[in-house]
Amino acid sequence: MKNTNTGDRALTHVIATYRVRDKQENLSKRAEGIAVGLTVGSWTDLPAMKQSAVLRHCGTVEDIRVLDTSEAPSSDASVGDPVDRGHAALDTVIADISIGYPIDNFNNTITSILTTVFGKLSMDGEIRLIALQIPDALAERFSGPKFGVSGIRDRLKIYDRPLLMSIFKACVGRDVSDLTKAFLEQARGGADLIKDDEIFFSEQYATPEARVAAFTEAARQLQAETGQRVSYAVNLTGPVRQLFDRARRLAELGAGALLVNAVAYGYDVLAELAADPDVTVPLMVHPAVSGALYGSDTHGIAADIVLGSLMRLAGADIVIYPSPYGTVTLSRAEGLRLVDALRTPSVHKEVLPAPSAGIFPGLVPKLVSDLGVDCIVNAGGAIHGHPGGATDGAAAFMASIEATVAGVSLEQAANGNAALKAALKKWGQPS
Amino acid sequence: MKNTNTGDRALTHVIATYRVRDKQENLSKRAEGIAVGLTVGSWTDLPAMKQSAVLRHCGTVEDIRVLDTSEAPSSDASVGDPVDRGHAALDTVIADISIGYPIDNFNNTITSILTTVFGKLSMDGEIRLIALQIPDALAERFSGPKFGVSGIRDRLKIYDRPLLMSIFKACVGRDVSDLTKAFLEQARGGADLIKDDEIFFSEQYATPEARVAAFTEAARQLQAETGQRVSYAVNLTGPVRQLFDRARRLAELGAGALLVNAVAYGYDVLAELAADPDVTVPLMVHPAVSGALYGSDTHGIAADIVLGSLMRLAGADIVIYPSPYGTVTLSRAEGLRLVDALRTPSVHKEVLPAPSAGIFPGLVPKLVSDLGVDCIVNAGGAIHGHPGGATDGAAAFMASIEATVAGVSLEQAANGNAALKAALKKWGQPS
Repeated sequence: MKNTNTGDRALTHVIATYRVRDKQENLSKRAEGIAVGLTVGSWTDLPAMKQSAVLRHCGTVEDIRVLDTSEAPSSDASVGDPVDRGHAALDTVIADISIGYPIDNFNNTITSILTTVFGKLSMDGEIRLIALQIPDALAERFSGPKFGVSGIRDRLKIYDRPLLMSIFKACVGRDVSDLTKAFLEQARGGADLIKDDEIFFSEQYATPEARVAAFTEAARQLQAETGQRVSYAVNLTGPVRQLFDRARRLAELGAGALLVNAVAYGYDVLAELAADPDVTVPLMVHPAVSGALYGSDTHGIAADIVLGSLMRLAGADIVIYPSPYGTVTLSRAEGLRLVDALRTPSVHKEVLPAPSAGIFPGLVPKLVSDLGVDCIVNAGGAIHGHPGGATDGAAAFMASIEATVAGVSLEQAANGNAALKAALKKWGQPS
Repeated sequence: MKNTNTGDRALTHVIATYRVRDKQENLSKRAEGIAVGLTVGSWTDLPAMKQSAVLRHCGTVEDIRVLDTSEAPSSDASVGDPVDRGHAALDTVIADISIGYPIDNFNNTITSILTTVFGKLSMDGEIRLIALQIPDALAERFSGPKFGVSGIRDRLKIYDRPLLMSIFKACVGRDVSDLTKAFLEQARGGADLIKDDEIFFSEQYATPEARVAAFTEAARQLQAETGQRVSYAVNLTGPVRQLFDRARRLAELGAGALLVNAVAYGYDVLAELAADPDVTVPLMVHPAVSGALYGSDTHGIAADIVLGSLMRLAGADIVIYPSPYGTVTLSRAEGLRLVDALRTPSVHKEVLPAPSAGIFPGLVPKLVSDLGVDCIVNAGGAIHGHPGGATDGAAAFMASIEATVAGVSLEQAANGNAALKAALKKWGQPS
């Protein structure tokens, strides 16, 4: 999205690009209005205060580009679409407007970025934030991921293959002993990580602390028996100011990662968890609520910003996001852009992507082909729904992962692995 | 949105209503999938675990209602719309699905509510959260507004008229003395409250603490001279864990209210500010970023939830929201639903609504007719853009407010008030 006219301002300005629908003759004035209105003030008699102190905070119009019909997303009511969609009209165009915001306008919070670039503007009719370039000089105010891909691999001592994560399902209402049984069932199949359901808030029967203690002991026994290592990603929940002590406590008890509903809690809550030296385990972001921001084609914020660049800035080590392989709405192109935002060269460590929903063992070669080995194979349904149970479910995935990185076909691998054979029979392979 | 079949579950369950587009024959299965999948687990072999402990956490399908064409919002691609919008299709209907979630599934965070009722579901294609009923037993876990309408009136000692708030514009890049001059210019016209621009994050020339100290002293002098009282709503910003100390400090220095970008910071950050006994001034919520959630007709979350019921639950004393009088996208009906959510009988205090954008003196009678006197007349453009300057701009509004509550026509009031006369000439009155 970087445009060639931007020049050095890309080093000193946040460049935000908006897709709008408007009358073509309004675009220039509207862009100027954004650049001035969201920086030095919309109703300011600017000529009277052209002191250098004010002008260096003024936004700049970087680009206005009217999309032709072929570029307008097909799922939009596209250019020239004869359907009246309320504020749309026959003589409107779709255009991308890029505005530069001086980084001196921001502090060290993501709230300051979001509020400036898509605060008031989010309420301005049909407008969507589709790109956001943050210069290093601003990114450096955030600590970013504490572990990132390499840090997570060092912790788990797994370097050459995707990680396997099993999703803990059916959490609420079950006691610690019941949950520990379920934990071990998944673990025995070879899962590297086992994560809580993100909707696990009730602490009536099993507090997070009790779960971490019990699962850590179960994992220790499993490792003593079989040599296999498994980590538990516990849902970090509770009032904001209690999260930090709780995160420290859960890490001390043996948690392998902290699952954070970062969209609902707010990016700056995640950023402070990431910056806190006492939070000594990776932060795994769940995408809950993110669809409320990215779901529409015409409003809100693109998924690669919501779950990509802003989560990396806020210090996520792992980002779970809706895979394009299932029935969900994120397209393959959107998913790849999101992963690109987690990995593109930056002052911050790379984030491990965990595409989720609709993942089954036969899909692993496609997943590795799309993302490489630095990803998490994250599954629930195709682990717990395996005909042989969750242990076989996880084992089938691990067999598929190992075959894929070894360059062995899944059919061949399945010959020596009944769990994988049963999984391929049940869920097949993508054509 | 409460439906008559819900019965006692409205006392023990959060009832969420979703507007979806789907094939009619899928609706029942989809509703069941939500009720089970977002509570006790989507892939659970439920019959095997029908212990009472689990079942009491299971969600319930409360209602499925297919909308007929006349009910579908006109700005939607409505029922039978022949345009292919990606996941829409010819044989789909628009329907409202209501699901009950047992309150024992939640803790005392709004994150737990949002993540459960619109976490994963937000990513499930064309779906919008349009209603959210929260039973008292859950609402009581939140402290709600500390001041509310009556508390704010007691602080300001103004009981019988709308409050007048002037929006501090052109903040960034200006030093304390320059800002103090602008503060006094607005104050002298009679503003009860003067608020920062919500995008004021830079502290290079004027820290929030320095502004509060200077404006408090200026307000003290103004009161000594004229008897008039004015409060300053300062933008509360910075890293999350520093907000609480800063809020206390700003209150001690004399801040009249704290402006909070609550959507970007997260509802639970606001909730803890509200619950903190050391935060001794009202919390004023700015709607920045909220349009990214409510803007679309087909995705996201309705404005009366985003800025209404959830802000009240989180403890906002004042909610600024886009007025339906300007060029913005919130309709009059949506605005009234939002205000209703701030006022409807509840375990929490009433919140003061501050419709914003497009407010001019001639509009005050309409505003009071729509909202009553318990509201804030909030203006920027029509104060700073007054031909006589900001003092006359504020004075024109105050004259309009006083005339309106006295039952005097604005024309009549303008005869004795040059500032109002000039304002009516410039901005007119709605027909």
